[in-house]
Amino acid sequence: MRNDNREVDSLREINMTVDFIKHPEGSVLIRVGDTKVICNASIEDKVPPFMRGQGKGWITAEYSMLPRATDRRNIRESSKGKVSGRTMEIQRLIGRALRSVVDLDKIGERTVWVDCDVIQADGGTRTASITGAFVAVVLAFGKMIDAKTMNKMPVTDFLAATSVGVLENGDEILDLNYQEDSQAQVDMNIVMTGSMEFVEIQGTGEEATFSYDQLQNMLKLATKGLQEIIEKQKNVLGELANRVGETKTVRSSGGK
Amino acid sequence: MRNDNREVDSLREINMTVDFIKHPEGSVLIRVGDTKVICNASIEDKVPPFMRGQGKGWITAEYSMLPRATDRRNIRESSKGKVSGRTMEIQRLIGRALRSVVDLDKIGERTVWVDCDVIQADGGTRTASITGAFVAVVLAFGKMIDAKTMNKMPVTDFLAATSVGVLENGDEILDLNYQEDSQAQVDMNIVMTGSMEFVEIQGTGEEATFSYDQLQNMLKLATKGLQEIIEKQKNVLGELANRVGETKTVRSSGGK
Amino acid sequence: MRNDNREVDSLREINMTVDFIKHPEGSVLIRVGDTKVICNASIEDKVPPFMRGQGKGWITAEYSMLPRATDRRNIRESSKGKVSGRTMEIQRLIGRALRSVVDLDKIGERTVWVDCDVIQADGGTRTASITGAFVAVVLAFGKMIDAKTMNKMPVTDFLAATSVGVLENGDEILDLNYQEDSQAQVDMNIVMTGSMEFVEIQGTGEEATFSYDQLQNMLKLATKGLQEIIEKQKNVLGELANRVGETKTVRSSGGK
Amino acid sequence: MRNDNREVDSLREINMTVDFIKHPEGSVLIRVGDTKVICNASIEDKVPPFMRGQGKGWITAEYSMLPRATDRRNIRESSKGKVSGRTMEIQRLIGRALRSVVDLDKIGERTVWVDCDVIQADGGTRTASITGAFVAVVLAFGKMIDAKTMNKMPVTDFLAATSVGVLENGDEILDLNYQEDSQAQVDMNIVMTGSMEFVEIQGTGEEATFSYDQLQNMLKLATKGLQEIIEKQKNVLGELANRVGETKTVRSSGGK
Amino acid sequence: MRNDNREVDSLREINMTVDFIKHPEGSVLIRVGDTKVICNASIEDKVPPFMRGQGKGWITAEYSMLPRATDRRNIRESSKGKVSGRTMEIQRLIGRALRSVVDLDKIGERTVWVDCDVIQADGGTRTASITGAFVAVVLAFGKMIDAKTMNKMPVTDFLAATSVGVLENGDEILDLNYQEDSQAQVDMNIVMTGSMEFVEIQGTGEEATFSYDQLQNMLKLATKGLQEIIEKQKNVLGELANRVGETKTVRSSGGK
Amino acid sequence: MRNDNREVDSLREINMTVDFIKHPEGSVLIRVGDTKVICNASIEDKVPPFMRGQGKGWITAEYSMLPRATDRRNIRESSKGKVSGRTMEIQRLIGRALRSVVDLDKIGERTVWVDCDVIQADGGTRTASITGAFVAVVLAFGKMIDAKTMNKMPVTDFLAATSVGVLENGDEILDLNYQEDSQAQVDMNIVMTGSMEFVEIQGTGEEATFSYDQLQNMLKLATKGLQEIIEKQKNVLGELANRVGETKTVRSSGGK
Repeated sequence: MRNDNREVDSLREINMTVDFIKHPEGSVLIRVGDTKVICNASIEDKVPPFMRGQGKGWITAEYSMLPRATDRRNIRESSKGKVSGRTMEIQRLIGRALRSVVDLDKIGERTVWVDCDVIQADGGTRTASITGAFVAVVLAFGKMIDAKTMNKMPVTDFLAATSVGVLENGDEILDLNYQEDSQAQVDMNIVMTGSMEFVEIQGTGEEATFSYDQLQNMLKLATKGLQEIIEKQKNVLGELANRVGETKTVRSSGGK
Repeated sequence: MRNDNREVDSLREINMTVDFIKHPEGSVLIRVGDTKVICNASIEDKVPPFMRGQGKGWITAEYSMLPRATDRRNIRESSKGKVSGRTMEIQRLIGRALRSVVDLDKIGERTVWVDCDVIQADGGTRTASITGAFVAVVLAFGKMIDAKTMNKMPVTDFLAATSVGVLENGDEILDLNYQEDSQAQVDMNIVMTGSMEFVEIQGTGEEATFSYDQLQNMLKLATKGLQEIIEKQKNVLGELANRVGETKTVRSSGGK
Repeated sequence: MRNDNREVDSLREINMTVDFIKHPEGSVLIRVGDTKVICNASIEDKVPPFMRGQGKGWITAEYSMLPRATDRRNIRESSKGKVSGRTMEIQRLIGRALRSVVDLDKIGERTVWVDCDVIQADGGTRTASITGAFVAVVLAFGKMIDAKTMNKMPVTDFLAATSVGVLENGDEILDLNYQEDSQAQVDMNIVMTGSMEFVEIQGTGEEATFSYDQLQNMLKLATKGLQEIIEKQKNVLGELANRVGETKTVRSSGGK
Repeated sequence: MRNDNREVDSLREINMTVDFIKHPEGSVLIRVGDTKVICNASIEDKVPPFMRGQGKGWITAEYSMLPRATDRRNIRESSKGKVSGRTMEIQRLIGRALRSVVDLDKIGERTVWVDCDVIQADGGTRTASITGAFVAVVLAFGKMIDAKTMNKMPVTDFLAATSVGVLENGDEILDLNYQEDSQAQVDMNIVMTGSMEFVEIQGTGEEATFSYDQLQNMLKLATKGLQEIIEKQKNVLGELANRVGETKTVRSSGGK
Repeated sequence: MRNDNREVDSLREINMTVDFIKHPEGSVLIRVGDTKVICNASIEDKVPPFMRGQGKGWITAEYSMLPRATDRRNIRESSKGKVSGRTMEIQRLIGRALRSVVDLDKIGERTVWVDCDVIQADGGTRTASITGAFVAVVLAFGKMIDAKTMNKMPVTDFLAATSVGVLENGDEILDLNYQEDSQAQVDMNIVMTGSMEFVEIQGTGEEATFSYDQLQNMLKLATKGLQEIIEKQKNVLGELANRVGETKTVRSSGGK
Repeated sequence: MRNDNREVDSLREINMTVDFIKHPEGSVLIRVGDTKVICNASIEDKVPPFMRGQGKGWITAEYSMLPRATDRRNIRESSKGKVSGRTMEIQRLIGRALRSVVDLDKIGERTVWVDCDVIQADGGTRTASITGAFVAVVLAFGKMIDAKTMNKMPVTDFLAATSVGVLENGDEILDLNYQEDSQAQVDMNIVMTGSMEFVEIQGTGEEATFSYDQLQNMLKLATKGLQEIIEKQKNVLGELANRVGETKTVRSSGGK
């Protein structure tokens, strides 16, 4: 049994409030257990300089935590004058993941800015950010379709993320909370699409290692969890969920 | 009649949710119309270097906006690598205002960090921050009193803030929303205590000026509004409200 | 009696040397008691990006202190790599104040850079900066009129600033020197025009508060002091003083 | 056939020059095809503040590229005044990987600084850095053992890294060069120990996804390649290679 | 004849006002032609960390220009957030030069901060800074001797600086003004002591070169000029001038 | 006898490997004793903004040290977020020196970026950088001539640099190694052309001074050493050496 009485393969309660903030084109408050992240998607009608004139768009993400999202107050990155390595790693991950399921050629010369602001943290903030950001992005495109400034949903598939890990006792577990995360020997973040293809696997043994078998067990747990999470995304999106994939372009690397 | 049908001397709806975030000692989500600010108060058991060994405490504030709190997305200050002049001005104001009603000698060598994070902006974010931060600070001290790490509430009086201004038509109005604020010729932020003494007056004519009579009318509106706001703070704080002032030290500058 | 034998409503000796530095279009060394500030106004033939193409100009101010302007040497802001909150607050104040009496539509797409460099400080550096900067700006425009690159003085009214405050004994006083400033319970900076309209009121009780009556007394002292200061500006400007107001546009917020 | 005539499961030529720079305790120039990295390990007799007094050590890594290591000159990060997200991600990865095979309790309160400076880049700079840095660290500890300032080699196992990926045609390949890397749909960096346990898996589909089967194929390629690379490390280290593992502590997360 | 009618070997008019600013221990306004620099020397009763516990002192210099010291306004270095290469070069030069004539062992664990702020520039600002800073430092030590916090003047010799150069027509000239400086092919700054020993020679051909003979001619001009400048320093210092050298320690590098 | 058994007028062994790195247009690894510097020259087909439209080119240099180039590890400047004064001084020197022998009018609107990265330091890194950078620049232009994108070698003369100094015993010596440099009383860097004209003289007495005679002796040593170094450059450049000077423009400042 885990410290919050979950089974090794149980997710924490997940909950998404759409249109949480009024200004952004897409806005979601996602709660995964005690982790709460505001995910806002903003559409800007231009692309960064290195992409101009190519007729395609871009998606970029920023991630931040309120200083007191955590048990001890953290110094604000704006006060320190620079963004930490951890923050950069996370925002690069979120952007990359979202780009894998959006057909950038279909969104025109626009930038989608995704802001993930953690207001309360209890483990899994980066994976909750991806899961919530996906919904915010679909909402934003949905609003453009409603406004007739876009024809079809340029999102090719669902996208969600969760964590798996190995505890000190050797148990592989799904969806680590903060206490589990700080004790785990291995921590792995997995991002998958609705067709259960991998987008990103980041597994790390901090002062520890893991075997091939452990890897397989963790992948199994992640797949189970992500199916459930994507189900939740579909519920939250309602009608809009049906538009995901309508412009599906074949970009899976597979084939052979 | 104003753009949201209020009278010139009407406040917007105000609403405070206490214990909004679980980690901070004091946490409040304040809503003033469509302006929403998370105010968190954290107690740290040390003071900044310049105050060590004096047996007294310190209160400092930080203020920030989510990039999409506003209609157009703003660049994150952590990305720019520096805090803007506007942000600094606001956080200095919040800290100064709070210090005026807290007896720093009574809190020991502790720092109270107040974080005001605007998640949605519609004018008056700095005054909403002060009003909400005051409640968060009282909650934080209340928690210390419950935990017996403090004897008496070191807060000497209530504290709240609002804005007043002059519209282009010459009307003096109370509690400006964003649209009013951007059209106003004069904008004045006023911070007062529960005994209706002034803590801070910041009146500014941006490319305009104002007369002695206009100033008097604005002061009158502010006084009326702040009495109502402090009433709300008392309701929200419940029992704790009665402890405010229990260590009242005479520090009014008056006397003659 | 005050620490330098002045009456509560007496200004310190004020003195302005025009054309102090040879390169700037307008240059003034202002001395208010032992406070000395070099105020230089530079005209640049372009405006910042956010104003291009609107046919109007801009005024911006920068403020700095020599490291040893004060009793103890301060670290240079260029060495620290960032400008302090206090400096930003002051330079925003100076710029805003000047813009309130200059008709930006009349100066074309030009930027007026105002540099206020405090070479010796004894209290009231920000108000001395405003008073001196106003003269420097008029001189700069005067030079343009002489050079026929401008037709009329775009300055609509005189502008000056001073401080008032409340001492620990409850006395309201005019034009605080450094020693008074560091002991005062309330410190208020007031900027007014030649027609005795307010441009800016910034009153602050640092760990103290002030009453309605005290506010009224301070306003009275400021009004008296500013009339005298504007008289000095007129003397220093000589002939040019008569051109101030020649393009007066009605922008007072008043009316009702 | 690949662009440089390798088989899909062939490594590029690997080559390590020990004692390349004279000052560092451990120094290696590693060449993997046309990628050349100077890996220096420096021992400092203190640990960062957050670790003091715990009697254990720390390993940290920094990574950089000469501006003209690449085909087009890059702006120096010292000129930009900040380290890019990519650099931070890489140096965090290198440090984490090395810490997984060093028993930090056995090195005393010392910090091992590992500097990986890419002087010529042709793909795989981060994995070459890990492979070379491992050798530099063993050399540095070896020097301490020779100098009798350390008793036993605190390195518990070998450590090496390589990349695998999926080309546009669906081929899974080992050890991508720059041209392959820029065309690949999936890019995965894998770090393993001498006992073929995983330390880190970072697989990324940039605007693409990959299946479970593709993942398995890539893992197989990586395992094969890493066995060969570790053989090279053993040759280069000679006698010292036998000391790796002499203090082996059981920290594999496995067990069940 | 030169553009200001001087002979090739004539200095511009030099003028030093002592005690120009009231707070610093030593303060001089030096004017060399139209170049005006405020040189302030501050004594701090501690040394930088790397010198603690050695019983000797340190001298360091900072150099800055008002934005409008020059014909076109320069961006403030505090706004840019960093000090330029030119500024760093100059402040390192000033500090090094002063240290060559001060016996750091005789000043105890104190730091002398020398601030050279150029308020008006017309060429030769760095050499004027050295000449003025020397006088400010002697004044500061003089004040300490008067206050009995120091026994003897720790300054071993006089110190002054000037520039020489080669014009396009091949003329070698002394003490270049701004116009000459911007046209010169060779620019050389020379710092010498009262005993006519060299402290620093910095000769530069910007897109040009110079011969051995030209070098000799320039050295001759500099020597002549520096003798005259040191005469002025002696006049300005009056009585104090006699104390310079009273602790003369032999540190000339010569001997053979 | 010197600490490495050289005569006072002997250079250390010098060695240049051309085409050391494959990407840059010109690349040299220079070794001067134990000092090793990678000098890369990159040609970019544009000039900095301040030079656009003038039809001429620019040469700029950057200098850096690997953290462990020295006996003790230095903090990376990219980590510190700023470039030190020493680094700026050196890169300004290198750029200036190279510009003195390149006819910028002949290279079109191109920028030559010269990167000098010290991988191992033992004194004289800045002079080795200049000597090596010169060769890299000639190689880069040579490649352009081969590719017919340039007609004639725009380099007007050879260029090399070395150091001279005065030891504590009064000996003047040539080409100081690190140990000598840290003990020397006077340190002088001299840059000369193939026609033995001076480009730069930077002589510094750190807490010491030097006489006219010592200066003459040092100049003599430098001249001897630089003749030998330029001989080496000619050998290394082979055929290309003959093209140096083919567009020689008379820019020596001499003549009278």
